[in-house]
Amino acid sequence: MRDRAQNVIDWCRSLATLSEEPGCTTRTFLSPPMHEVHRLLGDWMRGFGMEVSVDAVGNLRGVLPGDGPRLIIGSHLDTVPDAGAFDGVLGVVLGIAIAEIASSREHRPTIEVVGFSEEEGVRYGFPFIGSKAFVGTLDRGSILLAEPEIREFGLDPGEVPQAHFSADSTAYLEIHIEQGPVLESLQLPLGVVDAIAGQSRLEVTFEGQANHAGTTPMALRHDALTKAAKWILQVEKYGTAHEGLVATVGRVHVTPNASNVIPGRVHVSLDVRHRDDEIRHQAVRALVPDAFPGHFNQPAVPMDAALTGQLARAVEAAGYPVHHMTSGAGHDAMIIAPHIPSAMLFLRSPGGISHSPLESVLVEDVEAALRVTQTLVCDLLKEPNA
Amino acid sequence: MRDRAQNVIDWCRSLATLSEEPGCTTRTFLSPPMHEVHRLLGDWMRGFGMEVSVDAVGNLRGVLPGDGPRLIIGSHLDTVPDAGAFDGVLGVVLGIAIAEIASSREHRPTIEVVGFSEEEGVRYGFPFIGSKAFVGTLDRGSILLAEPEIREFGLDPGEVPQAHFSADSTAYLEIHIEQGPVLESLQLPLGVVDAIAGQSRLEVTFEGQANHAGTTPMALRHDALTKAAKWILQVEKYGTAHEGLVATVGRVHVTPNASNVIPGRVHVSLDVRHRDDEIRHQAVRALVPDAFPGHFNQPAVPMDAALTGQLARAVEAAGYPVHHMTSGAGHDAMIIAPHIPSAMLFLRSPGGISHSPLESVLVEDVEAALRVTQTLVCDLLKEPNA
Repeated sequence: MRDRAQNVIDWCRSLATLSEEPGCTTRTFLSPPMHEVHRLLGDWMRGFGMEVSVDAVGNLRGVLPGDGPRLIIGSHLDTVPDAGAFDGVLGVVLGIAIAEIASSREHRPTIEVVGFSEEEGVRYGFPFIGSKAFVGTLDRGSILLAEPEIREFGLDPGEVPQAHFSADSTAYLEIHIEQGPVLESLQLPLGVVDAIAGQSRLEVTFEGQANHAGTTPMALRHDALTKAAKWILQVEKYGTAHEGLVATVGRVHVTPNASNVIPGRVHVSLDVRHRDDEIRHQAVRALVPDAFPGHFNQPAVPMDAALTGQLARAVEAAGYPVHHMTSGAGHDAMIIAPHIPSAMLFLRSPGGISHSPLESVLVEDVEAALRVTQTLVCDLLKEPNA
Repeated sequence: MRDRAQNVIDWCRSLATLSEEPGCTTRTFLSPPMHEVHRLLGDWMRGFGMEVSVDAVGNLRGVLPGDGPRLIIGSHLDTVPDAGAFDGVLGVVLGIAIAEIASSREHRPTIEVVGFSEEEGVRYGFPFIGSKAFVGTLDRGSILLAEPEIREFGLDPGEVPQAHFSADSTAYLEIHIEQGPVLESLQLPLGVVDAIAGQSRLEVTFEGQANHAGTTPMALRHDALTKAAKWILQVEKYGTAHEGLVATVGRVHVTPNASNVIPGRVHVSLDVRHRDDEIRHQAVRALVPDAFPGHFNQPAVPMDAALTGQLARAVEAAGYPVHHMTSGAGHDAMIIAPHIPSAMLFLRSPGGISHSPLESVLVEDVEAALRVTQTLVCDLLKEPNA
């Protein structure tokens, strides 16, 4: 199984060379290098008996017929600019490797591997085109926007409705790198995701009065930046005091932003996430009492409790410690979970690094994921409605 | 005298319409509207017997011959972009008004009014071209840089050395708006400037580690912005605790400055000013222990004690309260003081506003400045070496 794990890593590294820009990995929605990704993965899947197609939004879909209900294993094939080799792609390649193992068995569930065409939102500024088409929630406006790329890729935007998942689908599994430092800090290879955190995003403005830095005594100042600095420390303190909460000021815009002028206005961003929407709303109310009610507010998405339990038992059965966790980042599973019982397995991210060429995985962790998923596939055949 | 004061304000407002851009006041070094400024002020000066010339860097110079040593009254005629009507210009117009009053007297010192061509540093990014040429410290590189504008204005850059002040000059007086809120907060029309504050300018960098705002728990973060925020509050606290010190963080640059990424690096500016260079150096050492020794470090410039004492007595004699203060901003007097005994008189800035179309002066404050300067001119004739 170690060799298979190394093979998975080699596949990911090899696909990372298929890029819009030489010397780095940039592969957005239906960009030219996606053809070659589909060809290589398609050939691999067909080689052991999968039926391969590309649906109308460019999702790569391979089906290994079986004698049980359909398990979907998927993640995305698009990348951020100057990406690493594993974010998204690893989950697709692992899915194919699992299907290949299952293909030699007499009894197995039907396995569908899906390589979603778009998750990162780089091309149009909104994410999840692939998985939204898969569950039938891609709106007409988004399809219209994506039409030129869909046609240029050789697909028919009129057939987007047929991209909908098959009615016999009973489980969706997404394997993904953690993209955070938690598993590494706990020295654990795997994490079982219970929920994808809800998220609030706000803009907060601090008003002061711009004035000459030389001629305005300290006592007569109205410095918007010192107000903002006090609040930034409050955000940090609040986040640290509440278990599981993350609260981040990532963007700062100072006006006029000149070294010899006291800041007159400071705009900052606030990003708050938690698995429990009420705790998140409390945090927003505490930190921004006059928050505009229409701010970005994405509810938490729980994974399916039964399937997640089965996944946790598979982790244990395969001999690994079970660690339940929340995903702080969005994933295709967030889109699919309301429609198909879903579970997510995280792999440790060395250095917590992702969205970077330095992104990596450990071969022993990929091996662990293979073992766990293989166990889950067998269990699903035994108790499909667990 | 109230009428003369109103006339001074009217002159300033009228000159403010001479601009490179319609609808606002922008008049940089030797820009075309400066011709008209020179023509109007020159005609005024010639009208009551002054000898008028424009020197090789474009300083407007008017001399009213007298029977005492030469008093120079000056300030600058260039402006920042979208400026007010009084910064610089007021000091020149007041100088001419004083010369006009003196012209009707039998005995008077020689009065030279200088309208410096460039103080703000807008055109080339370095200031004081006019006053540096006046005292002979304008370096060859700056002259070369300014040559095209000098020639286009109809002047000969080869004659810059002849712009040097006359050997019989014994005093330089600059009247300027305060550009700060101190006099207004004290309800005082005038301030006697003892010194122009020294200034340190530094860049400070806070290093953290950029990471995903959703997937990195608070306890595992290295947030460069929270480090910077703590320091910004230390700067504020230090400045407030030290009398006469101003310490400002005016510019902030966050990397990568995205709402969903923990800041990995923050660059901020620090501007520290005080009349006492040692107190300023102590502040820099306390706030930036590892400051790069080559940072911008401009020593404080004291005004001439004797002339400043004479100015203070003139303020008192004219019936106004004497308030001694430090200038937190640089002025032409800073360049001239090491070469000619210099003094500065500040006029209250309503709202502390300058470098803005909203910049203003009160007619009663202009009247006060006229009365005080008139008294000083008489005193200088009586005791030229006070």
